[in-house]
Amino acid sequence: MEKMRSNISMAVIRRLPKYYRYLNDLVEKGVTRISSMEFGRILGFTASQIRQDLNCFGGFGQQGYGYNVEELRDEIANILGLNKTNNAIIVGAGNLGQAIANYSGFRGSGFILKGMFDINPRLVGISIRDIKIMDIDEMSEFIKKADINVGIICTPKEGAQEVADRLTGERIKAIWNFAPTDLDVPEDVIVENVHLSESLMVLAYLMNQRENAEDNK
Amino acid sequence: MEKMRSNISMAVIRRLPKYYRYLNDLVEKGVTRISSMEFGRILGFTASQIRQDLNCFGGFGQQGYGYNVEELRDEIANILGLNKTNNAIIVGAGNLGQAIANYSGFRGSGFILKGMFDINPRLVGISIRDIKIMDIDEMSEFIKKADINVGIICTPKEGAQEVADRLTGERIKAIWNFAPTDLDVPEDVIVENVHLSESLMVLAYLMNQRENAEDNK
Repeated sequence: MEKMRSNISMAVIRRLPKYYRYLNDLVEKGVTRISSMEFGRILGFTASQIRQDLNCFGGFGQQGYGYNVEELRDEIANILGLNKTNNAIIVGAGNLGQAIANYSGFRGSGFILKGMFDINPRLVGISIRDIKIMDIDEMSEFIKKADINVGIICTPKEGAQEVADRLTGERIKAIWNFAPTDLDVPEDVIVENVHLSESLMVLAYLMNQRENAEDNK
Repeated sequence: MEKMRSNISMAVIRRLPKYYRYLNDLVEKGVTRISSMEFGRILGFTASQIRQDLNCFGGFGQQGYGYNVEELRDEIANILGLNKTNNAIIVGAGNLGQAIANYSGFRGSGFILKGMFDINPRLVGISIRDIKIMDIDEMSEFIKKADINVGIICTPKEGAQEVADRLTGERIKAIWNFAPTDLDVPEDVIVENVHLSESLMVLAYLMNQRENAEDNK
């Protein structure tokens, strides 16, 4: 199956966490198997989309039986690499950084928050959930010592590129970026952006469209 | 041009904020015009993709001239409805809610934060950037009084559906949802989700893929 996994489109990849989340809920509810039809109804996808998506990874369903919920969940967790452990630091320990530090979704994704960094002396020394906020000048050493492989950037736009440079300079190969800017990083560095402003603009667009549609009625 | 705007794919819509953001940067840098080739280079898109995207909205470029940066930015702002004003409340005033309240991207998107609500008596009464956190039981009246049309849900997963029910019960037609769950809302309600856990899982996937690729070298 491994060899089938190389050329999956990002659109399919981005749907996998949703599959995982719903399968998890089903397991918790004690559901043991589900048809692609029923699963599609819950997810808001067509049965054929579900079969197509899951076929990208080798297909798990059996004709006339459907999917084994727990098996499928575990397999998707496996594909997503959720059983792997990644050590992360947060850079930028303001409100957003602290919110992310308190974020309960970390553990389920295999990410472990090891440290937080900021330039603001009023934040340095404070602990958030037993994670101490350190001065950014201590970052390089900490990355090596604590075997960090993910940097989470929660700084304002202005400082973000410099932070990214420092992280990649320490051979960090994966960045979860919350700063509202696109980072310029070496080719082998993975950047996953959460651009809140873009999400908010999409909301503005959809509201505006609806308003225009209503005006034209 | 209005009539061209109805059947634009969500993929194009989701790229528009990025166009907007980069055009804004270019305006700030004093750039007055740009070719689709150069614009594509900056954005990491092909020139043809850019022409195709912008053609969905009627096309703004001129052969041999390129795009007028400021005009294009203003037109995209217009399409996105960023010149409209939307009054918002945040429900769930913990770390994430407070981070969102402090979020500087609000003003540029036409959203104005009017109030925050929580069930936690230790939070009620506190102000975040002059916005008072109120008890959730005051929410219904506030929505009417302050002409609120957007609810931002920053509660844990467990409370989110109940909050959504309360919001839509007050005829709120747009929700920006940060709770890690899909909300069940009436058909005419717009929901824009920010599922952090899904973003984090995509990051886990990409890291896992790279690791597997390296192992196979």
